[in-house]
Amino acid sequence: MNFADAVCQVVKEKGPLMVGLDPHPNLLPPYLVHKWFKEKGETLEALAACVLEFNRLILDSVSPYVGIIKIQMAFYEMLGVPGMITLKHTLEEAKKKEMLVVLDGKRNDVASTAWAYAWGYLSGISWGEDKDWPPAWEGDALTITPYFGEDGLWPFFQEAEKNDKGIFVLCRTTNPSASFIQDEGKNEKLFIKVARLVERMGKTMKGENGFSSAGIVVGATYPDDLEFLRKEFPSLLFLVPGVGAQGGKIDYLNKGFREDGLGTIVNISRRVIFAYREAIDTDGWGFEKKAQEQAVFYQNALNQLRL
Amino acid sequence: MNFADAVCQVVKEKGPLMVGLDPHPNLLPPYLVHKWFKEKGETLEALAACVLEFNRLILDSVSPYVGIIKIQMAFYEMLGVPGMITLKHTLEEAKKKEMLVVLDGKRNDVASTAWAYAWGYLSGISWGEDKDWPPAWEGDALTITPYFGEDGLWPFFQEAEKNDKGIFVLCRTTNPSASFIQDEGKNEKLFIKVARLVERMGKTMKGENGFSSAGIVVGATYPDDLEFLRKEFPSLLFLVPGVGAQGGKIDYLNKGFREDGLGTIVNISRRVIFAYREAIDTDGWGFEKKAQEQAVFYQNALNQLRL
Repeated sequence: MNFADAVCQVVKEKGPLMVGLDPHPNLLPPYLVHKWFKEKGETLEALAACVLEFNRLILDSVSPYVGIIKIQMAFYEMLGVPGMITLKHTLEEAKKKEMLVVLDGKRNDVASTAWAYAWGYLSGISWGEDKDWPPAWEGDALTITPYFGEDGLWPFFQEAEKNDKGIFVLCRTTNPSASFIQDEGKNEKLFIKVARLVERMGKTMKGENGFSSAGIVVGATYPDDLEFLRKEFPSLLFLVPGVGAQGGKIDYLNKGFREDGLGTIVNISRRVIFAYREAIDTDGWGFEKKAQEQAVFYQNALNQLRL
Repeated sequence: MNFADAVCQVVKEKGPLMVGLDPHPNLLPPYLVHKWFKEKGETLEALAACVLEFNRLILDSVSPYVGIIKIQMAFYEMLGVPGMITLKHTLEEAKKKEMLVVLDGKRNDVASTAWAYAWGYLSGISWGEDKDWPPAWEGDALTITPYFGEDGLWPFFQEAEKNDKGIFVLCRTTNPSASFIQDEGKNEKLFIKVARLVERMGKTMKGENGFSSAGIVVGATYPDDLEFLRKEFPSLLFLVPGVGAQGGKIDYLNKGFREDGLGTIVNISRRVIFAYREAIDTDGWGFEKKAQEQAVFYQNALNQLRL
């Protein structure tokens, strides 16, 4: 199925919440870290095994209520080869549960290298005339960065379209210094120019719901821009990060939805997966239950906004 | 030693050539791929093992003449976990030969995630109050992308400085659509604004040669910009890609050097490592000898330019 249609289906069935698996090691439940340190020594292997068990428990717990997850690749890469093995297994777990997975890698390069990223994350590799392998890291979509302009983006668009995958191009980021590049521009602000480029390049990737499988990242911390972009680009899917830890307020997000309540998925990471930390001095037992409560809370709140 | 000083030392001893290990699977010597297919089946494991042997032979062959390599991460990531194991071993091989290694990952994110990348590639991870591990992927420098502006760059600068590592921020890229973002800007072109930011943020990272360990990427395909940037930013190290396969001409690169012939390292990938392909219908035997010849050729040519 076209990626944008798959997203719309999940939003209709469950809602627009996307849970971010950003396993910051110092926020993991201490009881779980100590268990793995005991098992495997105080090593990156132990931390990676801990992250995998953490992710499995979170996925078991939230998957009845949430249909999309985002995997923040930085937190897996930082654990080295063991972290990449955990990433691979996390992808497999999410797929077993039929969740949509966005790999948040913010990759970018000149075309000849961008192809390699696109093969690795979206479409798979070929060798010679008759050998093919599926993508080594098979999620449903990948986030990418537009600093190279059109030709650096092109391989991602082409391989995504070929393989019914999605891409989200960084447009308006959540952070305080986002304006440094994104508000520049001679004729219009650069983040708008980027959105326009994505709309044009992704025209052929539209699904039955009218959205393209090439979407953009728009931070919850800039609600006016969110409103403007929705009006200007009705066919673009929005991935909206920045609610919670980064200061974005959920109430404004109604501006991201199309009239029918589709078109935006909202990522929340720490406020869900590390919800257990609201209790003081906790060792983290039962963290998955707290995560589930928060996932249900945010999913309901977002569904109320969009309908 | 300060990274910028380490680069200057290599340039003085051997020259400014940096060899790029971008192991495109379809350009690998066919005899070597077939050997590994026979050994491990037609799998990504086989391709990853092939890349590792290829890299070892290239490093053995060029290391007497070349002091810096660049590892293009996309080509390792695309091979999955086996590719990441090959990346790890390639790093170890290069370190055994005391080469400087730039990890070309073009990473970027908001600060809270940028820390994870910085820990993984530059400084290492901590857990709790007393547990520390070195970086999972320990090169000498990492390439990064500026779309998030200052606060997204900050973790990379801070962790690099703390650990005597380097960073190269994408500034003027080599590709045809580089201008889409990089030539925009209200007061001055964005790539110049980026260079100015890197200069300011990296002020405290200067070594004895007057260069900062925070440098910029400037494509060989824009020689006028290279000249302008050298004049305007005498303390920035330049990583110059784009010679050869991407169309950049070596003759213009004299404009990237400071008067004393320092300040620029020039990456060449395919024209060196895949030089064997200039012969028609070759199975690739002796590719490492061809790579060595080309490395010596380019190193000499670059040394002539800078002196």
